[in-house]
Amino acid sequence: MNAIIVSTGEELVTGQTVDTNSAYLSRRLAERGIATIAHITVGDSQAAIAEAMRTACAGADLVLLTGGLGPTADDLSRQALAEVMGTRLEMDEDCLAEITEFFRQRGRAMNETNSIQAMIPVGAQPLRNAVGTAPGIAAVVGQSRLFVMPGVPSEMEWMFQNVVAPRLGSQAGVILHHIVHTFGQGESDVASAIADLMKRGANPLVGTTVAAGMVSVRIVSRAADEPAARRQIAQTVASLRQRLGKLIIGEGEETLPVVLGSLLRRRRQTLAVAESCTGGLIGQMITSVAGSSDYFLGGAIAYANAVKQRTLEVPPELLETHGAVSEPVARAMAEGCRHAFGSDWALSVTGIAGPGGGSEAKPVGLVYIGLSGPAGTQVHRTSFPGVREIIRLRAALSAMNYLRLALLETQT
Amino acid sequence: MNAIIVSTGEELVTGQTVDTNSAYLSRRLAERGIATIAHITVGDSQAAIAEAMRTACAGADLVLLTGGLGPTADDLSRQALAEVMGTRLEMDEDCLAEITEFFRQRGRAMNETNSIQAMIPVGAQPLRNAVGTAPGIAAVVGQSRLFVMPGVPSEMEWMFQNVVAPRLGSQAGVILHHIVHTFGQGESDVASAIADLMKRGANPLVGTTVAAGMVSVRIVSRAADEPAARRQIAQTVASLRQRLGKLIIGEGEETLPVVLGSLLRRRRQTLAVAESCTGGLIGQMITSVAGSSDYFLGGAIAYANAVKQRTLEVPPELLETHGAVSEPVARAMAEGCRHAFGSDWALSVTGIAGPGGGSEAKPVGLVYIGLSGPAGTQVHRTSFPGVREIIRLRAALSAMNYLRLALLETQT
Repeated sequence: MNAIIVSTGEELVTGQTVDTNSAYLSRRLAERGIATIAHITVGDSQAAIAEAMRTACAGADLVLLTGGLGPTADDLSRQALAEVMGTRLEMDEDCLAEITEFFRQRGRAMNETNSIQAMIPVGAQPLRNAVGTAPGIAAVVGQSRLFVMPGVPSEMEWMFQNVVAPRLGSQAGVILHHIVHTFGQGESDVASAIADLMKRGANPLVGTTVAAGMVSVRIVSRAADEPAARRQIAQTVASLRQRLGKLIIGEGEETLPVVLGSLLRRRRQTLAVAESCTGGLIGQMITSVAGSSDYFLGGAIAYANAVKQRTLEVPPELLETHGAVSEPVARAMAEGCRHAFGSDWALSVTGIAGPGGGSEAKPVGLVYIGLSGPAGTQVHRTSFPGVREIIRLRAALSAMNYLRLALLETQT
Repeated sequence: MNAIIVSTGEELVTGQTVDTNSAYLSRRLAERGIATIAHITVGDSQAAIAEAMRTACAGADLVLLTGGLGPTADDLSRQALAEVMGTRLEMDEDCLAEITEFFRQRGRAMNETNSIQAMIPVGAQPLRNAVGTAPGIAAVVGQSRLFVMPGVPSEMEWMFQNVVAPRLGSQAGVILHHIVHTFGQGESDVASAIADLMKRGANPLVGTTVAAGMVSVRIVSRAADEPAARRQIAQTVASLRQRLGKLIIGEGEETLPVVLGSLLRRRRQTLAVAESCTGGLIGQMITSVAGSSDYFLGGAIAYANAVKQRTLEVPPELLETHGAVSEPVARAMAEGCRHAFGSDWALSVTGIAGPGGGSEAKPVGLVYIGLSGPAGTQVHRTSFPGVREIIRLRAALSAMNYLRLALLETQT
């Protein structure tokens, strides 16, 4: 069984919004052994939506369509489906009652236009939406099963998990995806090191991807059942670990903040951060992990020099002599942070994220990263290419990676 | 002239990575009066890429394809294009020399596999890539012009701006997109307030979108030239401002951090933050704006209670009596932050982001937001639905919005 995912929305096709629904649905389908063969995105035009429905239903057994179920005039998926089915829309009284109840429970007045959301093509079935006002729609078009869901991600996810997925049944065979994250080398270097595993058409299929400052290795395993697919993935991961060693941060959801968390928790150690040019990004990433209060104490966003002096105990002479972006200041920030917050480890970042503020001696992209721990303090001078956002992200990831490498060298 | 954008990559069609290239390219094309009518995404299969090329070239005057130009075995756009053109690949010596030079300049050894990137279908033209190793390819397929670009966003963006865009020429008429951001009300409430502007098929076309915790209003204006399109947009924005008032944060790139920056700069005032459950998110968002050091001093990531006491001067009795997530602690954090960092304004956030840590009296999603300024301190008790990431984002946005509203009430 294969699938095509259709996203609708003027904001998507014009690029005002990035489509995340299709990626979400592809991942959920893969877990059920259903391969997504294409994504199609079209705007808020009834003709374009109808055409996409026809193309997708002609090309795949299963079509999932998101968007165009809202209450406003530019929500046209209901009408497009009626057109494709050669039928008309009819008010579904149960749906109308549910929408009315949705508003009543929240103590909000139901807007007149919301009743249009209860219109369903004759011959199609409404799909329940417990978290929003737009019911979904299920229909059969030609040989394909088509499910229309809301475009708001939280409503779409709820409806897929609770209403659509249970109707998909089980498939013969499974496709499992797995991802292994690396940090510290370029894509072609990583690909060279694992070239023998990246054979075209192989099973498992191995490929590399660059995203969010990391090079990741994707593994796609096709097998008769889940245990067999998991075994194939485990073997491939073992081969990757042999070749890539400490370049590997983790697998799947194990991003740098998650891995740091387990390394610190296992050692019963704590971390504090002193962020200048990253402005809170490291803290934000570390605390995006639930339960991070077990090992993360907090820190200082030391944007102004006065904060570096007062909260991080950086001597004013250092700032005057060397400037805020310097090895001695990064060192003093890390050591001052560790002392002030009483943590086992402290990370400091000071640099020039640009686009302004650079000079010949200290160009945009220059970042000093300090790491102070039980065995002393190290400072790394790094230079990142790219724009402000990328420089800040790379600085934050590099800082966390230095801590990861240092933790790996200490005993549990 | 219209366009279809094709993205290729197993990581995209399987949902491991979200496609951002298509949105970027749609925005750039719209600025040139070229309407994107569809996005298509397929995996790393030569047959699927060739099929997508054929479909797209049959449906639009211009086709932009990204991905599949890397050096590895799963990079197949070159081969697919040769198949569609009914020709073969040939080594382009100029390209090979450029790739060799790219590695030489960076002092890196050129990997054997990189030379495959200099293979171009006979009859097509290579496109220069100054920021990476993969040249692009330009070709004519049927009545359509097709440009193949690398999938790595920074390389694709460079090539589009510097090599592809200059070849597109100028179009008759322009399409301009504009976006107005609101904060504080739901989508259907915003849509109701501006229903008369949201007529289907109107010009300018007005629609609403929910993204990143904000409800935004999109305006699409078609006109003979740019000044005329800009006039239409200005009129629509004026109508929106009349109807939505202070709900409107800003337009275009004017997100909350940008707007706060200009409000603070105009008043020559400074800000510091005291973040508990947001863990640095507000600082990170504020400092994502270049030049934020003019008004942002920094702050404390006060995750542990000890940090709240030491850095923010929160009396231990308050923490014991009321708990960290409470009105008095939010107030003390904001006031302590303003005092400790010597800022004109201070924001504090303390709450329960979940999934753990909630109780009947203090459920997940409960957040206290403190704002201390020249005229005193206010604390807002809020309750956000959703998962950890959404609760943190909404808390950060709400905090910044309270500051925005307070600044709007003070004189410049």
